[in-house]
Amino acid sequence: MDPFYGPGRNQLFVPGPVNIPEPVLHAMNRNNEDYRAPPVPALTKKLLADVPKIFKSTTGTPFLFPTTGTGAWESALTNTLSPRDRIISFEMGQFSLLWIDQMKRLNFDVDVVHCEWGTGVDLEILRTKLEADKEHKVKAICCVHNETATGVTNNLAAIRTVIDDCMHPALFLVDGVSSVCAIDFRMDEWGVDVALTGSQKALSLPTGLGIVCASPKALEATKTAKSLRVFFDWNDYLKFYKLGTYWPYTPSIQLLYGLRTALDLIFLEGLDNVIARHTRLGRATRLAVEAWGLKNCTQREEWYSDTVTAVVIPPYIDSTEIVKRAWKRYNLSLGLGLNKVAGKVFRIGHLGNLNELQLLGCLSGVEMVLKDIGYPVKLGSGVAAAAAYLQMTTPLIASRV
Amino acid sequence: MDPFYGPGRNQLFVPGPVNIPEPVLHAMNRNNEDYRAPPVPALTKKLLADVPKIFKSTTGTPFLFPTTGTGAWESALTNTLSPRDRIISFEMGQFSLLWIDQMKRLNFDVDVVHCEWGTGVDLEILRTKLEADKEHKVKAICCVHNETATGVTNNLAAIRTVIDDCMHPALFLVDGVSSVCAIDFRMDEWGVDVALTGSQKALSLPTGLGIVCASPKALEATKTAKSLRVFFDWNDYLKFYKLGTYWPYTPSIQLLYGLRTALDLIFLEGLDNVIARHTRLGRATRLAVEAWGLKNCTQREEWYSDTVTAVVIPPYIDSTEIVKRAWKRYNLSLGLGLNKVAGKVFRIGHLGNLNELQLLGCLSGVEMVLKDIGYPVKLGSGVAAAAAYLQMTTPLIASRV
Amino acid sequence: MDPFYGPGRNQLFVPGPVNIPEPVLHAMNRNNEDYRAPPVPALTKKLLADVPKIFKSTTGTPFLFPTTGTGAWESALTNTLSPRDRIISFEMGQFSLLWIDQMKRLNFDVDVVHCEWGTGVDLEILRTKLEADKEHKVKAICCVHNETATGVTNNLAAIRTVIDDCMHPALFLVDGVSSVCAIDFRMDEWGVDVALTGSQKALSLPTGLGIVCASPKALEATKTAKSLRVFFDWNDYLKFYKLGTYWPYTPSIQLLYGLRTALDLIFLEGLDNVIARHTRLGRATRLAVEAWGLKNCTQREEWYSDTVTAVVIPPYIDSTEIVKRAWKRYNLSLGLGLNKVAGKVFRIGHLGNLNELQLLGCLSGVEMVLKDIGYPVKLGSGVAAAAAYLQMTTPLIASRV
Amino acid sequence: MDPFYGPGRNQLFVPGPVNIPEPVLHAMNRNNEDYRAPPVPALTKKLLADVPKIFKSTTGTPFLFPTTGTGAWESALTNTLSPRDRIISFEMGQFSLLWIDQMKRLNFDVDVVHCEWGTGVDLEILRTKLEADKEHKVKAICCVHNETATGVTNNLAAIRTVIDDCMHPALFLVDGVSSVCAIDFRMDEWGVDVALTGSQKALSLPTGLGIVCASPKALEATKTAKSLRVFFDWNDYLKFYKLGTYWPYTPSIQLLYGLRTALDLIFLEGLDNVIARHTRLGRATRLAVEAWGLKNCTQREEWYSDTVTAVVIPPYIDSTEIVKRAWKRYNLSLGLGLNKVAGKVFRIGHLGNLNELQLLGCLSGVEMVLKDIGYPVKLGSGVAAAAAYLQMTTPLIASRV
Repeated sequence: MDPFYGPGRNQLFVPGPVNIPEPVLHAMNRNNEDYRAPPVPALTKKLLADVPKIFKSTTGTPFLFPTTGTGAWESALTNTLSPRDRIISFEMGQFSLLWIDQMKRLNFDVDVVHCEWGTGVDLEILRTKLEADKEHKVKAICCVHNETATGVTNNLAAIRTVIDDCMHPALFLVDGVSSVCAIDFRMDEWGVDVALTGSQKALSLPTGLGIVCASPKALEATKTAKSLRVFFDWNDYLKFYKLGTYWPYTPSIQLLYGLRTALDLIFLEGLDNVIARHTRLGRATRLAVEAWGLKNCTQREEWYSDTVTAVVIPPYIDSTEIVKRAWKRYNLSLGLGLNKVAGKVFRIGHLGNLNELQLLGCLSGVEMVLKDIGYPVKLGSGVAAAAAYLQMTTPLIASRV
Repeated sequence: MDPFYGPGRNQLFVPGPVNIPEPVLHAMNRNNEDYRAPPVPALTKKLLADVPKIFKSTTGTPFLFPTTGTGAWESALTNTLSPRDRIISFEMGQFSLLWIDQMKRLNFDVDVVHCEWGTGVDLEILRTKLEADKEHKVKAICCVHNETATGVTNNLAAIRTVIDDCMHPALFLVDGVSSVCAIDFRMDEWGVDVALTGSQKALSLPTGLGIVCASPKALEATKTAKSLRVFFDWNDYLKFYKLGTYWPYTPSIQLLYGLRTALDLIFLEGLDNVIARHTRLGRATRLAVEAWGLKNCTQREEWYSDTVTAVVIPPYIDSTEIVKRAWKRYNLSLGLGLNKVAGKVFRIGHLGNLNELQLLGCLSGVEMVLKDIGYPVKLGSGVAAAAAYLQMTTPLIASRV
Repeated sequence: MDPFYGPGRNQLFVPGPVNIPEPVLHAMNRNNEDYRAPPVPALTKKLLADVPKIFKSTTGTPFLFPTTGTGAWESALTNTLSPRDRIISFEMGQFSLLWIDQMKRLNFDVDVVHCEWGTGVDLEILRTKLEADKEHKVKAICCVHNETATGVTNNLAAIRTVIDDCMHPALFLVDGVSSVCAIDFRMDEWGVDVALTGSQKALSLPTGLGIVCASPKALEATKTAKSLRVFFDWNDYLKFYKLGTYWPYTPSIQLLYGLRTALDLIFLEGLDNVIARHTRLGRATRLAVEAWGLKNCTQREEWYSDTVTAVVIPPYIDSTEIVKRAWKRYNLSLGLGLNKVAGKVFRIGHLGNLNELQLLGCLSGVEMVLKDIGYPVKLGSGVAAAAAYLQMTTPLIASRV
Repeated sequence: MDPFYGPGRNQLFVPGPVNIPEPVLHAMNRNNEDYRAPPVPALTKKLLADVPKIFKSTTGTPFLFPTTGTGAWESALTNTLSPRDRIISFEMGQFSLLWIDQMKRLNFDVDVVHCEWGTGVDLEILRTKLEADKEHKVKAICCVHNETATGVTNNLAAIRTVIDDCMHPALFLVDGVSSVCAIDFRMDEWGVDVALTGSQKALSLPTGLGIVCASPKALEATKTAKSLRVFFDWNDYLKFYKLGTYWPYTPSIQLLYGLRTALDLIFLEGLDNVIARHTRLGRATRLAVEAWGLKNCTQREEWYSDTVTAVVIPPYIDSTEIVKRAWKRYNLSLGLGLNKVAGKVFRIGHLGNLNELQLLGCLSGVEMVLKDIGYPVKLGSGVAAAAAYLQMTTPLIASRV
């Protein structure tokens, strides 16, 4: 019996791992099988055909690594770059910071652009740097699409425009961990060379798949990339793709079946409908925050994230206490503030297989916790603001009309 | 793939079947086994020792019929009564009505006390009838503890007092389908002779177990009860209890393991804490209804139910449309108005393994549906009223302090 | 943790409940839902259209009672007959005996034909009785298709021929609990008026559904049948069928989804292929028994059952010890001898979602137990005999060719 | 519906992934949760305390990487060694070959000892090499404990003796992927510096955990190891161990709960009993192979593996056809011959949560396939030989005595 048992359902509103829908749990609740017999290759083949769709790519090559987002990062870097290669990257929160840390430890020469936490990529700095790089020493521009620590969504199309304006040949590597399948992501249109995500985010699976999609240019780069890699080597996968057996080592059968169902659910709802749902839930959350008189950690509307909202609380409150109390009293899981914003923000994750009522339940819980902790919130105010918007915008469920 | 699929989790707020907690789903997710081998009898023995606790009985004998509440009713009647036996019963809603219908069809002589739907047992009528029955022709008084159709909870202790005052020997048979494990039920203290419930209600299991508990007096009555019965015969069970094999026919193994876990969860939380939780959630729901300016179908506070609230809506609205719309737009399942109150009420079930945030999410959904359907509700008003109460009264989760 | 835990998978070879295939477990591993919302009626409608197919009936009306086989029996009798109606029935084992016991307790006038256990219906006795019944006092002939206690399969076509020869109008009620979906069952062709089975047998589901199929003549009989019935009343179901809501009381949602998948699997394999598989497994089992030098409890080949084999052991061995030891040492579940054959036979159930290797594993276990217990078996002999037959007859798996 | 569906249960006898026991499936069938809330750290803490026990280590530090065995290899090498470091390793089958390939690609200087496939480590060669290495240029000796491709188990104690005899300070890194939890593994006693396994082998979990255990000497080596590493870096884990949050990135919650249950089952049975069970099943398999007149790929008894048996078939048969046919006709999954022994051997995996009857079922299937494919096997002969041994040696199930 669970030693932390509380009645009712845990309301999971961290920005990942997120709620797993029942059909995905069913699909994963299965025995192992021989991954060299025909079913797993047949399943994999179809997955590989479908995975690029979530990146809106028709030219990308997907890889399903049995790893996490951190491993997917490593795979993106080591397959396309060589030690000492120059990278431009932007530090704007805990996850961009960790990726940069990884780049450094992997021996790349990282030109870090430090952004204030709560802001996004400064396009002018990028433009200046690229224009200055006449010799094209910069081999890659690495960007987190959605910084999960601060709720900042960067404008990838605008970054691509800057790169193109400068006619710079650098690779464009993007962490889509907390955006793909939730925030519009157009790999081909935006010229993203490596896009990646993790299974436990908007795909609503357990942790365990690092999903990478590589452009033809990125695949070409593997030929000259001298970084050491074995487990994360794309070429091993490509070799097995050609053989039709697909796996250089044992995959998680259960996650593959889970991914199949997760994709089926997304395609059934329609990827753009899924994105629109996230837009609505994101907006509703921000309306609630506003109604509570609290500030969004994200400094400008252009960066507002539709998957996570980092809420700044007044200095006399420790946000860690909010998260603890939500869990201890209301069985509500919220995200902590991390690193520079530890104690200063708490985060509401509103991504994945989630609907309006679940979000409103969460918001009502946040209100009660805020009151518990001494913040003068008017109970019901945030819910009212969010509901006013949702009641006008929520579509009928397509299959039930 | 589910043809009615909608994103996110269905919010299940019908007054049964209710949400099944994850540990119960785990316990039931198992292969069949030989029910004549040692594990099933050992499991059953422990279940039979524990089941009376949910009725607060130390003297009752439990039976776990593979059936529904309707079957449990039939079992209660046919094991204790003979054809043409006189029964006093109270019709105050769809479920008491159906039980009475069953009594008639089983050839009992039912003295039906018709109560206005929304009211409970009229104790004075009962007293008058019992006093008049000098010859003790009345063999049983049958009462639904909590009428699920109208949200009326009857005062069993007061009924017992009336019976005792009249020194009447009739059996006291009680339907606790939507009360046991949620509303205080004291079988021994209140002299209930047969108490019964169904697995899909506050026990939070799937449908499939009709749980009956018989007092020593009820067991004695079986000796003279001439009603025909085989499948529902207690004596067949008692015979197998003595043998230590427990089952006259094949039980549902999965439901037995599920019941084990359901009881474990209830005992872990503490039965009285479970009841207190229902009291809070019931009160919070009624506060929301009041805030919306709507009427409770239950006419007097003494009858307010802590497991289901039937909400009366204005005559210009068809409550069926509310239920349909809730499901079609918000993935929210509410209870329909039944029979006499069809179209006039909708019902919120707030029983089983449920917590505060789940209820508040539901209430916010009800508000949006009311607005959708043209009722001038102020969004957030009901949630605010409920949350104000819950924020003051919800205890910390014991295991997380 | 399971107090009776043993390593590896329990080999379940009792003649029910049987192994549940993984896809069925997946389908059942789900939360409750509102059975009055559209999905459950839509699901039920399709189930009711498909269920008659397993009885090979196009004219029958199916009922899915939340009960066991015992309840299905009661439903068959009380819906078609009146108290004191005369029934001819055949006692040839524990299950036919129990059904007859039920008939008597339900106040029918049963003309019991006692057959030696191990034999089947004596057609000449039936003919004599029907010919003698000039006034057609006999209202029903009740027969167990496959007596699970002795492994005797009766010839329903031959019984129908006798009835027709005598031009007797009696209803023909058949228990197909351990035959339907495993042994050929032709309801329409054989003029069966009520056929019934239980979910935990060849359908390979958990216990909990009593599945009944009624011919038009049986439905007609309900109009004059005076037996009391409520829970088991077909008319309540028919009323709800007309309304399109289908359920007079709460069904087990999980079992309905499970039944959907169970039927899908059977139709995917092909019902006649399923039956042919049982024929092969039955034959293989009997070859093993012969190789061991043991006797089949079934006295003549015409009655051999393809779902269960009752093996007679020498008098110096107690078959109960075989069953106990199989479970204690080899995690193998075999069926006990019941009643008259207690201690004298043990039973191998070979029905449901089962294949050749599972059966051979079981047979190798039986051999080891026989040796353990002192019977001079040659290890491998039964497996060799069964495998010789299976190796010649097992088809390739259709989907894998 | 599964496009490759066949009736009955797939008999999974590849040497991994192996059958998952039901209690582990239950434990994993759960929603995600916040891994920063108290339950996951509490669970992890207990897992880290228990994991070294499966390596029989009291001084080792465990790491639970979200990866596969290939990743665990990479972690073992990069955390303890620097580029160009010299390694002695033994190639004796596909998996030792792949590990060596990884070593080379990670830029180590590998002194490969090529052994004939089917033989194990040649201790004299090792001794010669170590004695010659006066300057201790060899930094590590890497050995696969059980070569899964050929069924060769190396004698780790003897290797340690050689190293000690030579007073050589090299690290001793051991792949225990197909041995740990099945074949005796004594990390501390044998002076293993890094031991590793994968979750989908004898632990009987899904793929997804690369489990590494490091000796104090190995931990010390991390301080000077210059290999680049981030995802696989032990130090990141150690940092989080100290913080009590345990995870540098998101773990698979489900696998952690699954591992908890898998360990509970192993400890309940007793690790040495688990090993003894594998010894019995391995021996039984080899007796069957002998009875069939076939050769074990493993050349000497001292190397016989108790987890996998590679069976050499006559040159006129293609072993690939055996594996295909087993799957197509009998729903039996066997292991292919790999690389040098492709077409020449097929493999029977007999590891994990498995019992006697399951193995005998498999062996009967192998016999039928052999006959199918034209090998003159006597059906039943292998089963008889295996059963004769098992019937004498199988203990009663402890919990059922």
